[in-house]
Amino acid sequence: MNTLDALRDALLARLGPRGVLTDAAELAPHLQEWRGRSEGHTPFLLAPASTEDVAHVVAACAAAGVAITPQGGNTGLVGGQIPQGEILLSLKRMNRIRTVDAAADAITAEAGVVLTALHDAAHGADRHFPLSLASQGSATIGGLISTNAGGVHVLRYGMMRDLVLGIEAVLPNGSVVHGLKALRKDNTGYDLKQLLIGGEGTLGVVTAATLRLFPRPKGHVVAMAALETPDQAMALLQHVRNATGALSAFEIMNRTSVAFATQLPGVRAPFVAPWLALLEFESAEATGLEDAVERVIGDAFERGLAKDAAIARSSQAAADFWKLRESIPAGHRSVEAPQVSHDTSTPVSAVPEFLRRADAAVAVLAPGVRTVAFGHAGDGNIHYTAIAAAAAAPFPAEAIAAAVHDVARSLGGSISAE
Amino acid sequence: MNTLDALRDALLARLGPRGVLTDAAELAPHLQEWRGRSEGHTPFLLAPASTEDVAHVVAACAAAGVAITPQGGNTGLVGGQIPQGEILLSLKRMNRIRTVDAAADAITAEAGVVLTALHDAAHGADRHFPLSLASQGSATIGGLISTNAGGVHVLRYGMMRDLVLGIEAVLPNGSVVHGLKALRKDNTGYDLKQLLIGGEGTLGVVTAATLRLFPRPKGHVVAMAALETPDQAMALLQHVRNATGALSAFEIMNRTSVAFATQLPGVRAPFVAPWLALLEFESAEATGLEDAVERVIGDAFERGLAKDAAIARSSQAAADFWKLRESIPAGHRSVEAPQVSHDTSTPVSAVPEFLRRADAAVAVLAPGVRTVAFGHAGDGNIHYTAIAAAAAAPFPAEAIAAAVHDVARSLGGSISAE
Repeated sequence: MNTLDALRDALLARLGPRGVLTDAAELAPHLQEWRGRSEGHTPFLLAPASTEDVAHVVAACAAAGVAITPQGGNTGLVGGQIPQGEILLSLKRMNRIRTVDAAADAITAEAGVVLTALHDAAHGADRHFPLSLASQGSATIGGLISTNAGGVHVLRYGMMRDLVLGIEAVLPNGSVVHGLKALRKDNTGYDLKQLLIGGEGTLGVVTAATLRLFPRPKGHVVAMAALETPDQAMALLQHVRNATGALSAFEIMNRTSVAFATQLPGVRAPFVAPWLALLEFESAEATGLEDAVERVIGDAFERGLAKDAAIARSSQAAADFWKLRESIPAGHRSVEAPQVSHDTSTPVSAVPEFLRRADAAVAVLAPGVRTVAFGHAGDGNIHYTAIAAAAAAPFPAEAIAAAVHDVARSLGGSISAE
Repeated sequence: MNTLDALRDALLARLGPRGVLTDAAELAPHLQEWRGRSEGHTPFLLAPASTEDVAHVVAACAAAGVAITPQGGNTGLVGGQIPQGEILLSLKRMNRIRTVDAAADAITAEAGVVLTALHDAAHGADRHFPLSLASQGSATIGGLISTNAGGVHVLRYGMMRDLVLGIEAVLPNGSVVHGLKALRKDNTGYDLKQLLIGGEGTLGVVTAATLRLFPRPKGHVVAMAALETPDQAMALLQHVRNATGALSAFEIMNRTSVAFATQLPGVRAPFVAPWLALLEFESAEATGLEDAVERVIGDAFERGLAKDAAIARSSQAAADFWKLRESIPAGHRSVEAPQVSHDTSTPVSAVPEFLRRADAAVAVLAPGVRTVAFGHAGDGNIHYTAIAAAAAAPFPAEAIAAAVHDVARSLGGSISAE
């Protein structure tokens, strides 16, 4: 019997049949990146149901000299969760909400809790967990921490890093870090949990976390503005942020991204313009926000900071505005032409310059290229995809990626924003 | 010539006479903790004026095998900045604001910039840097980062850690980390700057940082409430946070702390009560906040969440409320009896239980003890000082500190909050 077989049998004895999966059909959904862009293989999948079992599994694999790939909800876009021969460690059975302390504004959840389940648990205690992203119906707390996830509300609430109060994790030697503190302030020693946040599971496996909660906002308003240029978008952002503390999201989308999104059934755009901006506002108070937003948007309009603007007058209209924004990835994914995507950030003030320089660089490399540019302009984070003019057009993807990344770096930016 | 003399002469040649201080009178203010609680000694003080010179100095000391104590504004309360024979490294000459980018909401300042100078630079660009604490006229950016400082606005804006976008630092081998990014999102690699934040200078010397700015709030309201118990204070906090997003500070003070503070000239308390709470509100809008606060406080009053309450109707009245709170440390520092201070945090919901248990434990150890309890209740952070009944009363300070720390730990708390 070889090492792997012996390890599998030993772990089967400890975890039981639900904890060790070898059936190809059961493994399949864990081995495929959800857009089909990478496919992996693994000898078997381990699904421990407790922190003690995670510790046991990690220690046993370390003792056997066998590598592990930890996996959360398998929603990642860069393939880090897909094993290439390693044992797959899934935290999906660790899906309990351990405690909700509304008075401390803290919730403790296991790594396998899906983000929407966390939202629901917070709402059940009349609290709010603000991290919000397209994959929230599948993405899990462990993965969101290990990738330091972002999303649409970073502008107001920060990244996952800013929402973590404490972490429980298993280190590579199988020891357990018990750090589930619900403290706003703790300056005892180095803040080592910061290395686990965004550490991609390389320094340890997150098994549970204590996360910040907030009062549940009672007022919500969504608006959309039509704009000529990214410069106008950033001027609008500054105006709105100075005028109100209620802004919770500021997303922009270029004409090409809107055109792809509106090809999908039921997706509509309120304006035809070079750029659209989606603005979301929230307030603790149930009333008064819509009037305040009307004043702010009206004032922006008078200052020439928007060509046109509309405030969603119903929750359906608000959902439609968000649907346009959230349909962009699906809208251009199916285009039958080579494409290359980037997730860059720059200082917020440099977003227009980034777009100008990236567009110019890409147009030289791939004549007739179409560029989908959209994202979290309020954080300086643009999702930027170059799509070939046609299926058979010359398209130097690597050179394009290098050029876009060079532009981001030259502006003091990052090539891996979220 | 011994090693130290040779090192001093070599560094004098590099830094010039302003960069190497040996005169006792010039050294004196750097060797004394400001309350006189610890006194140090050093062979000489180095004051480099550039990052390159800091790197040179650190490399030279490392090569000579000589230890360094870095020092910022010398406002620390635990003596970490006081050398005990090490060479003292002061960053006070590195006091330039390098850039202010209002559109990116980012400012880059050198380590020796005093916090009030940073506030002024931000205001000059119509922006706001929210970290605020009693020693802000002396405390410097490098020290505030290396100690992960807190202060009165953590409730709304977080600790120093939450305000740092990028860091430039010199590592113990003299190499320079160039990390002055102004990015809201950057997930390339481990976030190693988090180890320098709160690292007390042990992992590197911070030479400059890029910090987050915010829109400048235009509305400010301060209120004070009279309360029976800490439980009532925490219920008031929850009520106010749920009712408005404008709360920026929530400080509590017990009757003993108020009594000491009001012994100082010009310090008045609006109410006599077991507990007072100071509430500060801010808003982007210039108008409307006072009415909103009146509604919230009135509603709290009707729900029995306060015995009495007053809203400051002038900036002088607001300053007087803050003066009461900020006079507490000076008020009891001069008491002629043994005392021992603690800086604990617990989950916000556990503050009343912490105070009950700590008071009970301390009363047993030191009959007749007076306890000064005040601080950032909104963050679960209480400054707690036990003062002997009289100058000659038995006062087991170490046992008291151990007991208070045990209470904090038993509630999942920290013994080093700020």
